[in-house]
Amino acid sequence: MTETAPRRTCLAVVLAAGEGTRMRSDTPKVLHRVAGRSMLAHALAAVRAAGADRVAVVVGPGREDVAAAAREAVPDAAVFVQSERLGTAHALLAARAALAEPADDVVVAYADTPLIEAETFARLRAPLAEGAGVVVLGFEAADPAGYGRVLREGEAVVAIREDRDAAEAERAVTLCNAGLMALSGKQALSLLEAIGNANAKGEYYLTDAVEIARARDLPVACVVAPEDEVQGVNDRVQLATVERTLQERLRERAMRAGVTMIDPDSVFLSHDTVLGRDVTIEPNVVFGPGVAVEAGATIHAFSHLEGARVAAGASVGPFARLRPGADIGASAKVGNFVEVKKARVGAGAKLPHLAYVGDAEIGPRANLGAGTITCNYDGFDKHLTRVGEGAFVGSNSSLVAPVTIGAGAYVGSGSVVTQDVPENALALARGRQETKPGWATRFRDGKRSRQTSGGT
Amino acid sequence: MTETAPRRTCLAVVLAAGEGTRMRSDTPKVLHRVAGRSMLAHALAAVRAAGADRVAVVVGPGREDVAAAAREAVPDAAVFVQSERLGTAHALLAARAALAEPADDVVVAYADTPLIEAETFARLRAPLAEGAGVVVLGFEAADPAGYGRVLREGEAVVAIREDRDAAEAERAVTLCNAGLMALSGKQALSLLEAIGNANAKGEYYLTDAVEIARARDLPVACVVAPEDEVQGVNDRVQLATVERTLQERLRERAMRAGVTMIDPDSVFLSHDTVLGRDVTIEPNVVFGPGVAVEAGATIHAFSHLEGARVAAGASVGPFARLRPGADIGASAKVGNFVEVKKARVGAGAKLPHLAYVGDAEIGPRANLGAGTITCNYDGFDKHLTRVGEGAFVGSNSSLVAPVTIGAGAYVGSGSVVTQDVPENALALARGRQETKPGWATRFRDGKRSRQTSGGT
Amino acid sequence: MTETAPRRTCLAVVLAAGEGTRMRSDTPKVLHRVAGRSMLAHALAAVRAAGADRVAVVVGPGREDVAAAAREAVPDAAVFVQSERLGTAHALLAARAALAEPADDVVVAYADTPLIEAETFARLRAPLAEGAGVVVLGFEAADPAGYGRVLREGEAVVAIREDRDAAEAERAVTLCNAGLMALSGKQALSLLEAIGNANAKGEYYLTDAVEIARARDLPVACVVAPEDEVQGVNDRVQLATVERTLQERLRERAMRAGVTMIDPDSVFLSHDTVLGRDVTIEPNVVFGPGVAVEAGATIHAFSHLEGARVAAGASVGPFARLRPGADIGASAKVGNFVEVKKARVGAGAKLPHLAYVGDAEIGPRANLGAGTITCNYDGFDKHLTRVGEGAFVGSNSSLVAPVTIGAGAYVGSGSVVTQDVPENALALARGRQETKPGWATRFRDGKRSRQTSGGT
Repeated sequence: MTETAPRRTCLAVVLAAGEGTRMRSDTPKVLHRVAGRSMLAHALAAVRAAGADRVAVVVGPGREDVAAAAREAVPDAAVFVQSERLGTAHALLAARAALAEPADDVVVAYADTPLIEAETFARLRAPLAEGAGVVVLGFEAADPAGYGRVLREGEAVVAIREDRDAAEAERAVTLCNAGLMALSGKQALSLLEAIGNANAKGEYYLTDAVEIARARDLPVACVVAPEDEVQGVNDRVQLATVERTLQERLRERAMRAGVTMIDPDSVFLSHDTVLGRDVTIEPNVVFGPGVAVEAGATIHAFSHLEGARVAAGASVGPFARLRPGADIGASAKVGNFVEVKKARVGAGAKLPHLAYVGDAEIGPRANLGAGTITCNYDGFDKHLTRVGEGAFVGSNSSLVAPVTIGAGAYVGSGSVVTQDVPENALALARGRQETKPGWATRFRDGKRSRQTSGGT
Repeated sequence: MTETAPRRTCLAVVLAAGEGTRMRSDTPKVLHRVAGRSMLAHALAAVRAAGADRVAVVVGPGREDVAAAAREAVPDAAVFVQSERLGTAHALLAARAALAEPADDVVVAYADTPLIEAETFARLRAPLAEGAGVVVLGFEAADPAGYGRVLREGEAVVAIREDRDAAEAERAVTLCNAGLMALSGKQALSLLEAIGNANAKGEYYLTDAVEIARARDLPVACVVAPEDEVQGVNDRVQLATVERTLQERLRERAMRAGVTMIDPDSVFLSHDTVLGRDVTIEPNVVFGPGVAVEAGATIHAFSHLEGARVAAGASVGPFARLRPGADIGASAKVGNFVEVKKARVGAGAKLPHLAYVGDAEIGPRANLGAGTITCNYDGFDKHLTRVGEGAFVGSNSSLVAPVTIGAGAYVGSGSVVTQDVPENALALARGRQETKPGWATRFRDGKRSRQTSGGT
Repeated sequence: MTETAPRRTCLAVVLAAGEGTRMRSDTPKVLHRVAGRSMLAHALAAVRAAGADRVAVVVGPGREDVAAAAREAVPDAAVFVQSERLGTAHALLAARAALAEPADDVVVAYADTPLIEAETFARLRAPLAEGAGVVVLGFEAADPAGYGRVLREGEAVVAIREDRDAAEAERAVTLCNAGLMALSGKQALSLLEAIGNANAKGEYYLTDAVEIARARDLPVACVVAPEDEVQGVNDRVQLATVERTLQERLRERAMRAGVTMIDPDSVFLSHDTVLGRDVTIEPNVVFGPGVAVEAGATIHAFSHLEGARVAAGASVGPFARLRPGADIGASAKVGNFVEVKKARVGAGAKLPHLAYVGDAEIGPRANLGAGTITCNYDGFDKHLTRVGEGAFVGSNSSLVAPVTIGAGAYVGSGSVVTQDVPENALALARGRQETKPGWATRFRDGKRSRQTSGGT
């Protein structure tokens, strides 16, 4: 973040009232998610990180869901309703009450442009400290057709020219308007109120603030961001493109910090994924929100983690699922076809295969055989299973919670354990074996004769 | 589809006799699959959708498998055998009997060019209605080297010039010949019979029809298709490229219709996959043929579906496998490491983890614990398991079919249920627990002393 | 490999002393892996395949791990320590003892440039046989900025010009220096010893050998390789890029040899993966080292194989894990959520679902039901399970090893088998079923009344 001294106050207005009909969705556009978080929450997080003291959010009529999401992300956000859709300047003025309060800087963000980084918002504010009245965010467009062009004389912006109004020479300009803007707090309301709607659609366009500011001799500056940072989302194809851009950003940051990704393109991160040094991620891993993996741990292929911690040197997968509350201890092993939920797995413990461990505390160096299942749910309540340090649970055992397997205890394979097992004891809970010689021969003969005679 | 009035009759001849030696396969080239369907079936589906009344398929000698596949896709297809490989015109004339029957339009398609859309075949027919004798399908090639160039004067095609015969100026032409062609039904046979083999290879080339038509003053038109639509397949690298192109087409259509794909590149669709509005597909999902997912359902990462229906609001995966006959009810949940085959899962029922449910009817709101397995197979026959509405099957239970768990009944964890359980009853079928204090200590001591003394 | 007659002797010096601080790793850079093998091992394998009789490896001080890896890959490699980091020529001279022994050709390779093919090393040697003193490896750079340019007069190299020293015209040269070099064995030591350190950093640069050779009238040649083959690795982003390049190379070779990959981008191969003709690989498959799949076998989506053999016509996955020692017989089937480790699975045997088979011998045509688990581990030792030909193991059975199920025998579902089962016998080992009518109703009523009264 660039430095301004003394510290300037800042109001961010996040426009979140777009209908998003091209999304073809019952969910409002700005609540669609990117890297595990709604686009609205991305925009709000960025303006907060860029130093906004106050945040106003403009939502469409009846969008209580959007308002609630805004308040969840920023509890003291002021939410305003744009009752009619009459253009961006009209949307901003829905937040008139917020704009009327004093602020040095006003930043205008869009909830459907979720990739803007905090640092970019901070750069957008910087010219205001040097006297600019308006700062527009520009980008160099690979294909400028359709975008408004930012026309400059020297550093000063003289106009934003819509594509359809651009002269031949202006069409050759590749610096385009991203839509985001910073306004001098002292001038913002006055500039916005001066914007008219004498245009084809009869709407109030925020871009007109540029001309009005110039007419008042207020300097208008332009700050340039990379094109992929200013991508907006209008349909699900663009949503997927924005997701890819953000994933590439997150992956590259992780790799530069010392994470190995054999195939970065197949690793899906959440906005908040924390990966330590020398973590290795094999291909095809999905991180939901709330995951931290500590140094030197390995996440093998085909793993799915959410709300989980993996301590240093642990090994997860392939084919592992860690659900919220999974806390895997140092050098522990969670192997294939294993699900862990709301369970602490002690250091060096092993859950190598085909197991469900939910609502449990597994002691250090305990070993759970293939097919071990904590029977934690009785249809009404969840109960706790405890397995003590160094205990050994034989394969295909059912641990019917609430139940405790003492430290160092053994559970025989195939047991259904319903009573606590003392430390160092053995528990067996399975049927006796009966053997019936020749039965299989008779069974097959019977089956075959029935098949021959046309029976079922 | 372009409109022609009155309706014109159409014969499509699909050439499927290529050897495909570069595939290095025991399977004939045209039976290799793209998006879950053979290339031949793609070509046949497209010509049928474009309005072909009659379909003829030309296969190589002894290719009964190709003939059978053609008849499976289009039961009334006429199959002809090209006994020798003497060029495309020669192949077409193998279908002489079909060509001799009257048809307004004749369309020539290739079974190894599977991405042509019905709409393109329809466009290819359109000029015939306006008097064209021959219509060639062209494409603008990014790199035209190696392709025959379509040479035009105004709109009229004057020749198709092979790359090796092209003059310097002609080489600069980027409009290339895709090979597909439409012919006036009245002229087709006569044109084809006029094609000679006075060339280096002594083969009969369909492209010569252009020159012959011109010599007869029949207009020759050209219709242009995107290059990626006319891709042909000669080896497995090209097969993979064609698959990617088709997947991109299918994914984009789904997203534009209101499906969220977090990572479209890792979602594999079949030609017939049906996805409702607001369906969310997480990364890494594979759809085999015959899947329909209704509105608002979520398919989590690492899921594999084939021949299955997922009703509105249901949740599948991560790590779920739905096999043919899986019918998942509204708002039901199929969780991780769960396989469902030929089973109806009622609305709101839950199969959260590590289960096999095959040949079953699971009632609404029933809950099957982790590790539940329907034992449906006795080595000879498959038997049915019924679980009633709201029943609760404890973890790690084996339901030995045929068996019925009544509505509202409970099955204790780890039970092997071999007899029907009445409504609202409890069934327990497991061994009693025995505990042997201190056994584990003695066991470990014994193991360690043997290890010390060098025993096994 | 180009042919030289008579056969020339060759010393390869592999420089492996780089620190790799930008990797941000506790593992030395050259031990990071690509396609399942360290970069060092890739470089060593390529020089050996290109005919190097002797191999010298130069490692950094204290890098016993790198030395050990080198010796593991090439047991008779001579390892030298570069005690200080004073440039590439200085590093080479750490191997002075090896260079002092006679060799016709000396090849200099880099352990962090792992994609060079043996054939390229062979091409690099070829000009030596025709009298060259030095041969540099060049590549046509898409963006040459930052690379040393290879300046030529005709075919002769006159200089390698560092980017910062290049004149305007020289900057336009796109032929760049990859760093790898071949030297006449007779001249190598003398050339290297003549290299000084009169430069900004005070280091000894191997590239200076070019000028020195020219001053001695020794011809200097240049051999050109594709840019992606000469990629070096300095950070994890580059490591991922190199991995992708190698994967693309491996996938394309497999496809051209007759393997179908529906989505090649999601198939991860190891350097040594062997895939037979008409093998089909569905999307999302990971091959660790040591896997061979024979003709006509299918590896379904979401499978993970390592150290395993899959015989002709077998079917693996989806969601299968084959661990080292898995040996799957012809036409056998390993289905979903199945793990096989150190086990032979006979021809035509079926492990369709949710099973763990470790330390086992499964006979031909045996069938293991869903949930079958070999209980192979008692916390100390691993024991063997044998299942005879045509045996049928019912679902959810635990086979407590050591144990043998005889040929043709049956195991009832849910059994815990602790004693051998004779051929054609039936074994049952499970609890009797008890049914308690109305219990579930009372249980639910109790739960609900407690919930109402505020109990747990």
